[in-house]
This record gives sequence, C-alpha cells and structure tokens, in this order.
Amino acid sequence: MSLTTVKEAVEIVVNNSENFGVEKVDFLNTLGRVLKENIFADRDFPPFDRVSMDGIAISSEAFNKGQRTFKIEGIQAAGGEQLTLQNPVNCMEAMTGAVLPKNTDAVIQYELLTIENGIAKVNLEAVKSFQNIHLKGTDKKQGDLLIKENTLISPAEIGIFATVGKTVVNVAKQPKVMIVSTGNELVEVGENPADHQIRRSNVFTMVSLLEKLHIKTDTLHILDDKEVLLTKIKLLLENYDVLIFSGAVSKGKFDFIPEVLDQLGVKKLFHQVKQRPGKPFWFGKIVNTEPSQSGKTIFAFPGNPVSTFVNCIKYFYPWYYKSVGLDFENKQQAILSEDLYFKPELTYFLQVKLNQIEGKLWATPILGKGSGDLANLADADAFLELPDNRSNFTKGEVFPILSYRSF
Amino acid sequence: MSLTTVKEAVEIVVNNSENFGVEKVDFLNTLGRVLKENIFADRDFPPFDRVSMDGIAISSEAFNKGQRTFKIEGIQAAGGEQLTLQNPVNCMEAMTGAVLPKNTDAVIQYELLTIENGIAKVNLEAVKSFQNIHLKGTDKKQGDLLIKENTLISPAEIGIFATVGKTVVNVAKQPKVMIVSTGNELVEVGENPADHQIRRSNVFTMVSLLEKLHIKTDTLHILDDKEVLLTKIKLLLENYDVLIFSGAVSKGKFDFIPEVLDQLGVKKLFHQVKQRPGKPFWFGKIVNTEPSQSGKTIFAFPGNPVSTFVNCIKYFYPWYYKSVGLDFENKQQAILSEDLYFKPELTYFLQVKLNQIEGKLWATPILGKGSGDLANLADADAFLELPDNRSNFTKGEVFPILSYRSF
Repeated sequence: MSLTTVKEAVEIVVNNSENFGVEKVDFLNTLGRVLKENIFADRDFPPFDRVSMDGIAISSEAFNKGQRTFKIEGIQAAGGEQLTLQNPVNCMEAMTGAVLPKNTDAVIQYELLTIENGIAKVNLEAVKSFQNIHLKGTDKKQGDLLIKENTLISPAEIGIFATVGKTVVNVAKQPKVMIVSTGNELVEVGENPADHQIRRSNVFTMVSLLEKLHIKTDTLHILDDKEVLLTKIKLLLENYDVLIFSGAVSKGKFDFIPEVLDQLGVKKLFHQVKQRPGKPFWFGKIVNTEPSQSGKTIFAFPGNPVSTFVNCIKYFYPWYYKSVGLDFENKQQAILSEDLYFKPELTYFLQVKLNQIEGKLWATPILGKGSGDLANLADADAFLELPDNRSNFTKGEVFPILSYRSF
Repeated sequence: MSLTTVKEAVEIVVNNSENFGVEKVDFLNTLGRVLKENIFADRDFPPFDRVSMDGIAISSEAFNKGQRTFKIEGIQAAGGEQLTLQNPVNCMEAMTGAVLPKNTDAVIQYELLTIENGIAKVNLEAVKSFQNIHLKGTDKKQGDLLIKENTLISPAEIGIFATVGKTVVNVAKQPKVMIVSTGNELVEVGENPADHQIRRSNVFTMVSLLEKLHIKTDTLHILDDKEVLLTKIKLLLENYDVLIFSGAVSKGKFDFIPEVLDQLGVKKLFHQVKQRPGKPFWFGKIVNTEPSQSGKTIFAFPGNPVSTFVNCIKYFYPWYYKSVGLDFENKQQAILSEDLYFKPELTYFLQVKLNQIEGKLWATPILGKGSGDLANLADADAFLELPDNRSNFTKGEVFPILSYRSF
C-alpha cells in the first residue's frame, strides 16, 4: 500500500473542513472564539474632543495675546455635560476623559500651573491649539471597520466589543466532538491496572488539546468487540459532528475501526501517512446528503500516546481552523540546535525543547524512546517537523514546529 | 516627584508576590494551572515488555537456528494476561500494546509474514532479540520524577496525570480578584452613551486578560465620590486578595483612588512609572499581620484603555507567575522591522504586529493615536518595549515583547 505523504494528508483533511454555522454569544464569553461578523465603530472615537491631561482648558488666542493668568470659572469633570467658558480670558479646570469645554482649544496640565485664590498662573512659553486634546474621530470615524470577520478573539477584541456596545456577538459555532478510546488493555484513571493493563490517557490529552481551542468534548471507551463497536459508533455518528478515535487502526487482529467505519458508510479518505510517529492514521467522512447539514468527520488516530498527540495538533487543529473560517496557517518555525540523523523515508516529528534567544527560536531535540513515551512530552515543548526526503539534518537549519505550550 | 523606572516597578511588584496556597482539583480541570506537587511514576513505563508491532512473537533462538516457519499457538491480545509459548519452535500472534508472551523475545510484523493454515512464514534474513518490543521500564522506572512541582500544566501533563492514576492534583490556588472601574463618564455596555459619555471597556479587557491565566474575576463600577469609594473599597479589601482599578490615579480633581487607599491603610509602594503609555500607575499593599494569611495587593492602573492593557500584562502577569510559583520570566523578544524615533525619556510600549519568518520574530510598528486608542489593539499583536535612555531605534535591533495573542 502506498503511503499518503504528510503534505497530501493535511491537504485532504483541510479540504474536508465543515461549516458548523454561527451562534450568538455574550461578548464576555467569546475569548478564543472566531468572530463571524464585521465590527464597526458605532460613533466617532473619541466621540467628543476629549481632554487627555488634568489641568485647565483655555483659549489659546488669549494665551497668544500674552495672557499668563487665568481666572477659574468652573470644573469640567469626566462624565459631565459640556460646559461653556463664558469669558475667553478665563479658564475652566478640565479633567482627563472630560469633554473639552466650549470656547476653549488647549489644555495645560497641572504640572505647569500654579493655582492660588482661584487664579491659575501658567509657567509656559508657548501653547499650541489642541494640545492635550484627543480630537473627536481621530482614532476612528463612525462606520469604520474595527474588527474583521473571522478574527480570533483576544482580550483586545473583547474591549472593542464593549466600547461599541456589542453585548452579544456572532461567533463560529463549535463542532460537537466525541473522543473515543478503544483497547481492552485500558482501565480508568481511578483504577489500579493489573500487570498487563494500563490507564486511559489519550482521550484526556485530546480533551485538553481541544479545550485549548475552546471546544468542549465528550469521551467514551469502547472495548475491542466488532458488534459493540458497530452499534455504539452508529449512534455516535448520529449525535456528533466529529469522532476522534485513539487506537485500533493498525494491522492487529482487533483493529476493527477501519472495517467498522466502512460498514457504517464512512468514506475512507486515506489510511497510513508517511510519518513517524503516527503512521497508521485513518481519516474519513460521511458527506451529508442534505446540503444544509454538515457532514461527519472521523479522525482515527493510532493509539500510541505520542502518535495521538502529534496527529491531533498536526491534523485536527488546521481542520478546525479552516472549519471555523480562521485564516490561519501555522508558520511557526524553529532553528535546529544540533545535527541529527534519521534514516527512514518518513516525515519525522521530533520532540524538541524551545528556546527564544534574541528574537530567534531554537529547537533542541529531546530524544524519547519511541511513540509510546508520553512522559517525554512533559520535557519537551513542541515537535519539529523534519521532511521525509532526507536523512541528515544540520544545526542551524530551519524547520516548521508544532508547539503545545503557550510560552 | 521622581518617577520609578519600569525595571524598578517590575522588581517591586514581583517582590510583593503572595502565596495563596494549594488546592486539590480534578486532573481534567487543571489545564493552565500550576502544579504544586512532584509527579512520580507509579510503576515502570512501559509496565511490562510491550509488543510494539502487530505480528508474531517468537523465540529468536529458534529463528537463529535457521527456522523460518512457525506454527501459531494462539493470540496475545492487548489487555489479555500474559500467555506462555508452550513449544519454543512455535509462535504466538501478538498485538501492539499486548504483553510479550512468555518464552518469546522478538516480534516480527505482519508485513514481513505470510500466514497460511495456521503457519506463519517469515520473509526476513535476520531477527534481533527484543526487536519490536518496548521493554519494561525503558521510558521511566517506578519512582522516577515525571513532572516537577511548579510546572504550568499543558495537555502533555494532563496525559501523564491520567497515566499514573492522579485523579486529583494539587495546584496553586488562584487569588480572588476584583476589577473595579471608576469614572462618571462610563456607562454600561448595553446602554446608549450620551455625547459626553463612553462605555465601560477596561474591566472587560482585564477580565479576559486574567481569563487567559485561568483566573475568574468579579467586576464593579464605582462613581467618583470619595465617601462611596471609601465605603465600597473597604468592603472589597475584606473580601478579595487583589484589587485592580482602572482610572482615577492621575492628577485630576476626582482622582480619589490614591488618597482613599491611603486612608484605608494601603501602603503605597510606588506611584507613576517612567513609561508611556501607563505612567500614572499606582501600586500598593496591605501586609497581613497574621503571617498565615496572604496580604492584599492593589494594582491601580490609569484609565486609558491601552494604559490599562499594557500595565496588566507588564505588571500583573509576572506578579501572578511569581505568586503561584511559576519559574517564568518573559524572555520573548522580537526584531524591530523599521527605524523609529521616540524622544521622551520614558520606556515606550510600542504597539506592533508580529511576523515569524524562518524562525525569526519580526515586530512592525502599528502607530496608534495615543494611549486612548483601544481600537488599534485589534490591529496589533504585542507591545515592543523600547528602553527609556535612547531616542533612536534602528531596524534589526532586538527588544523584549509583551504578546497578547496566542499565535
């Protein structure tokens, strides 16, 4: 069987993204979600000529005629309606955030004043018109586009939603995802495994990997029994948009997943990718006959912990980004910090520790003991993706990375 | 008044970190939290000699004596108790994840076999002892340290908790944080502001910035009235570990925060930092007289949106990291992509767009219209921190960055 290359596999996966529609969410709960509308300025920003220093507002004309002392007429506080300077030779105290009083055009900060008996004396040689004033509409004009549709929402966007009064925001709906482990050797986390058993862990790393995308998931364990698998997976296909499997996709006698999915009408798009770890990855789909409904997407990852981990980041992540409309291609790269030899003609996802030095990102190999070595992931930060057409990799060369730590 | 430098301010803030203790959390809810115990291997990993390819398990001695056909005695499935090869000239089918059957020491994958009538014929010249077997304890030995205390928990750590049966994990307790806006010009997000009013936004950007640290926060708005501030802040000091204010810390007539905090017994540690934006930042503390209890920490940020934003990342973040015991210093740096001139002797937090090219991180200035320009934050990704002792900054120079986007 000829293997699919990593590049082909990513293309197939991304080309089979699905649109899960849009939902309205309270703006404060949208962090990390993808915006599904353009956000416009509902008014000019600032919405008025805004005082940007605490001090006095004057008419610069008076100052320029030589006047240096100004009688204080009143106080323009932030949040107060616009006051009017009655006499152009006087001044008005004015606070940061306040509307500039009518008949004034310059603000002089307290640091440059002496105030005594209601008279402000200015210790300053020159005053410019509109100094210390943030003029109406200089940041943005009413109707200006502030945030484009399909932006990943960060705290900056949350602030803008609040500013323009968007209490409820249209964001991409998340897919309904079920993560299934198989394998009779697996016991629950709270159990004491017998000598020949191990605890379930892959479903939980994937729950966390998807939690980073703000996707809530369900999990299930199914034993290696073909009839049970058929019955249960049939039901899952009815209730979820995406099924992610861990295990039972290789050549073993109990690796029923590909066969069962085939029987349930899931179309295989590829099986086995030219990579290590993670080679036995199976990917397939049921295209929905009703165009208004999304299809069912199935990622069946091999059961080794590191295989599942790297495949989830390498394939599920870009599929999700494309599905929710995020214009995101992982361009992160790092510089290999030592020479490396890897013989097989497979894309090698090398576990590395990352170091940022003077704006350059260095990747130092953390050599594990094979695809089962989950514990090794705790010592590393990312996978460096080494191409399949070479065996020698040299210190200083730059390769793509898949990082799983925030910093 | 002499200004505190940014470096001094960070030092003071970090030296006033607080220990909020430890709490037990279900392992699956610990993503992004800080681990407060060492995690050890509860058994060897793998816990048994583990078959790592689907195929047959044989005695290599038989193969090396020239034998190439092996009668299949049975199947060793994953999750099954260890079987015993009864006759050393026979073989046992063995599946990935299974225990290696007794009396066998090599696994040959199906790809290299022809199986007919219960006889496996091996198409292979040489067989090495322990090939395709992941030997007991090669990854980790029972008692080995897998994850160190004070690690920030990523999906990799979640997987390890599951593997070693840690259903409940000790993590750093989060501080109880209240975020308070002041300012009579502010109205709620759902309201229509009058001409001289604007909507509250800073508290929500900060809620989101702290959400990224997995800290849940409460928010409150208090009007610029000294008596009201006194009464309400007194109550907040009793009920929260940290108060974060936005606004009312500058020189305005209604900037009551420093005075009110002083009256309530909060010790000022600095006020005004040599930086732009964010200069009027006030930081203080109440040291608890009972050593078993943590003190109260007060971050009073200036009310301009960008000032609040940058100060929250620059000061609150490292204070939090130190408080929860995270050995983290932000070493992220980026390369300035164009020449820049900035005259004032202040540390300049320049808004920049980041670009990763061949492992190098470039920062391109996005020039805003001053500290009030929140909308500009949506076009940028980070702040480049330019030092206060120079005015000319040259393309290609490397400076620290504060990034607020995940990628």
